[in-house]
Amino acid sequence: MKNLVGACMFAQSGGPTSVINASAAGVFYEALRQKNITKVYGAAYGISGVLNENFYDISKEEDIELEMLKYTPSSALGSVRYKLKDYKKDDTDYKRIVEVFKKYNIRYFFYNGGNDSMDTCNKISKYIKKSGWDCNVIGVPKTIDNDLYGTDHCPGFASAAKFIATTVMEINIDSTVYQTPAICIIEAMGRNAGWLTASAALAGTTGYGADLIYLPEVPFDIDKFTNDVLEVCKRKDNKCIAVVSEGVRNSEGVLISELFAKGAVDSFGHTQLGGVSHNLANILKQKTGFKVRAFELSLLQRCASHLASKVDIDEAFKAGRTAVKAAVRGVTDKMVAYERVEGKEYKIKYKMANLSLAANTEKTVPIEWINKDGNYVTQEFIDYCMPLIQGETKMQYKNGLPRFANLKKEQAGKR
Amino acid sequence: MKNLVGACMFAQSGGPTSVINASAAGVFYEALRQKNITKVYGAAYGISGVLNENFYDISKEEDIELEMLKYTPSSALGSVRYKLKDYKKDDTDYKRIVEVFKKYNIRYFFYNGGNDSMDTCNKISKYIKKSGWDCNVIGVPKTIDNDLYGTDHCPGFASAAKFIATTVMEINIDSTVYQTPAICIIEAMGRNAGWLTASAALAGTTGYGADLIYLPEVPFDIDKFTNDVLEVCKRKDNKCIAVVSEGVRNSEGVLISELFAKGAVDSFGHTQLGGVSHNLANILKQKTGFKVRAFELSLLQRCASHLASKVDIDEAFKAGRTAVKAAVRGVTDKMVAYERVEGKEYKIKYKMANLSLAANTEKTVPIEWINKDGNYVTQEFIDYCMPLIQGETKMQYKNGLPRFANLKKEQAGKR
Repeated sequence: MKNLVGACMFAQSGGPTSVINASAAGVFYEALRQKNITKVYGAAYGISGVLNENFYDISKEEDIELEMLKYTPSSALGSVRYKLKDYKKDDTDYKRIVEVFKKYNIRYFFYNGGNDSMDTCNKISKYIKKSGWDCNVIGVPKTIDNDLYGTDHCPGFASAAKFIATTVMEINIDSTVYQTPAICIIEAMGRNAGWLTASAALAGTTGYGADLIYLPEVPFDIDKFTNDVLEVCKRKDNKCIAVVSEGVRNSEGVLISELFAKGAVDSFGHTQLGGVSHNLANILKQKTGFKVRAFELSLLQRCASHLASKVDIDEAFKAGRTAVKAAVRGVTDKMVAYERVEGKEYKIKYKMANLSLAANTEKTVPIEWINKDGNYVTQEFIDYCMPLIQGETKMQYKNGLPRFANLKKEQAGKR
Repeated sequence: MKNLVGACMFAQSGGPTSVINASAAGVFYEALRQKNITKVYGAAYGISGVLNENFYDISKEEDIELEMLKYTPSSALGSVRYKLKDYKKDDTDYKRIVEVFKKYNIRYFFYNGGNDSMDTCNKISKYIKKSGWDCNVIGVPKTIDNDLYGTDHCPGFASAAKFIATTVMEINIDSTVYQTPAICIIEAMGRNAGWLTASAALAGTTGYGADLIYLPEVPFDIDKFTNDVLEVCKRKDNKCIAVVSEGVRNSEGVLISELFAKGAVDSFGHTQLGGVSHNLANILKQKTGFKVRAFELSLLQRCASHLASKVDIDEAFKAGRTAVKAAVRGVTDKMVAYERVEGKEYKIKYKMANLSLAANTEKTVPIEWINKDGNYVTQEFIDYCMPLIQGETKMQYKNGLPRFANLKKEQAGKR
């Protein structure tokens, strides 16, 4: 644990969320105020901005624009999906990173992302230590998938959950308006972890929920699914809303979407490249003759910052600040994490999680939070998730449309 | 023009919108305060509620819930798609309607809907007059499609436009986050009229817009579309956002979506039942090898009341009140319409439009508002549309989720 004086480098990586920029705002806010931090850089396009000396001088940005970052979706600095090689096999990138760090006297490195990004952060952290260059490295978590290990939940998840629950409510109230049959299949993101799909259950507390929820944590059987929907239709005047994870798999672990794409499932002569929802809708359409609609929430669920959760924004901002404060105190090789404080009222405290563990472990929905029929979640999930979606964004509108942050992005790297 | 004393009947019909309930709130607010209106009924499921004596006593509802209707999407009373026959050929339904009107002393009838619903309203209006039963009939416009003739714009359109423009912004800022290529095809509603699709152009004023916009008003050529996208990709670092109407047709008037469904277009071996966006995305994917995403905005664009426009809500509410005030003054056989007042500041006045004309004419986007290449709209459209999306909803959140109106729906019809 060393108290270092020098510049800091911040980068965003992986898929964007509604609040990843709130964490950026937190890092910048704190770093610009820390005496030990002499310069604040933001890398363009994640780690590739470091490798290419493509980064910005954040001190040149206006305070109001940095504040607006809290309410601006996506990754303001640009993002990347770039997997660093094992440095024992090929240390080219790592040498280059250290070279750049030395050139700009980078003593603090903050990497903001999900599992893969924490892997990058972890590798850099370990190599930097080995290299002898003193630099404190902290991961700032981010993922709508909520599948990072070592933290109660991930920044970005709650806002996506709030969007999904709200959208389910709106689809429910719209699609049940006629006396005619109506089936809706809504597809949520999350390849291996069902957190996002499960968040549809929050809508159920309002009376405008989904009837069926299918997570990737339990095997998905198309016939059982069809029967489940028909059962609901019988009970509920031929109306049913089902929410399905994009990542549902059969009992052999094969993605249902892949089965459809390969034509392995008889989807009545039509192979669809869309997600699983369109294919399932197609089967139900043929089977019932009812109106069946498929909804792929796609990018909308991760960038709809107009529906971001205040709790999520505030926590993500504070996660960024916490990372900087810890690094300045001398902490390194950790990821900022949330720990839920026991008690009646929802409260979290920030802790420093093991970076290696966070990088290599995927957290899925506990099986005991899924009902026995495998088609809904239990009250435990709702109790866990509901506090996270509380409060609304203070996003401003300008001329009737969202007002996003407008960064100058003054170039600070000189190749 | 007669001043009548008696009950009023209100019904909602056709596809729901974010603000059709705001018009209901306006009708109820005014009707409950008019001395000449002795009873306020709301029909369940449009005209079918009249035919089946299935309607509610609105005086039993709490004021706060009627107020909440302004911020509740979809049709709170239920809706219907039911086409009345020509009464010269079969007057069974009409006789029944007059019978019910007499039984409950219905002297005011308000029908809230789009083209088809105005057709229903018009037929009832004409038949009632012929029948000798004194009843003032007024249509209240509603349609996200904005294709009703005789009004500057339609309640419901602006909120959908605001949702579409906001969503385009969010997709733009999210999908351009990597240095890798990204093409997005967004599909908006509007079979024959391109108003909704055109509203994507509002996002263009923020710097987070779409590059290409295709309305159903001009013929759509798949090859030209592909070339347009590739041209944009060349200019813009392999990034392109195109917004396409679900109703685009080729030069022979055949829906592009139908061509795909029939397999008449070589979509590289894959026939997709999804809308036109998935099929076009598929073609581009094969042609470029780029990441191409398709977005069907589907019901989300008509029920996302959390993004409703304040102007739209206020106008829709006032349209309801105006209908009642006019009817009580003795006006009948008309549709409430908006007229834009000339001048620098946006302002409308309410007028009474010809119901027969509104019922049978579809208003499309003027050809001169579409650019010569047929792939964007002109400033005229933006000037027309921008004032309509101003201001935000006062929708309340409860426990982090929208708080919709909760009506008692006390049954008032006795069969």
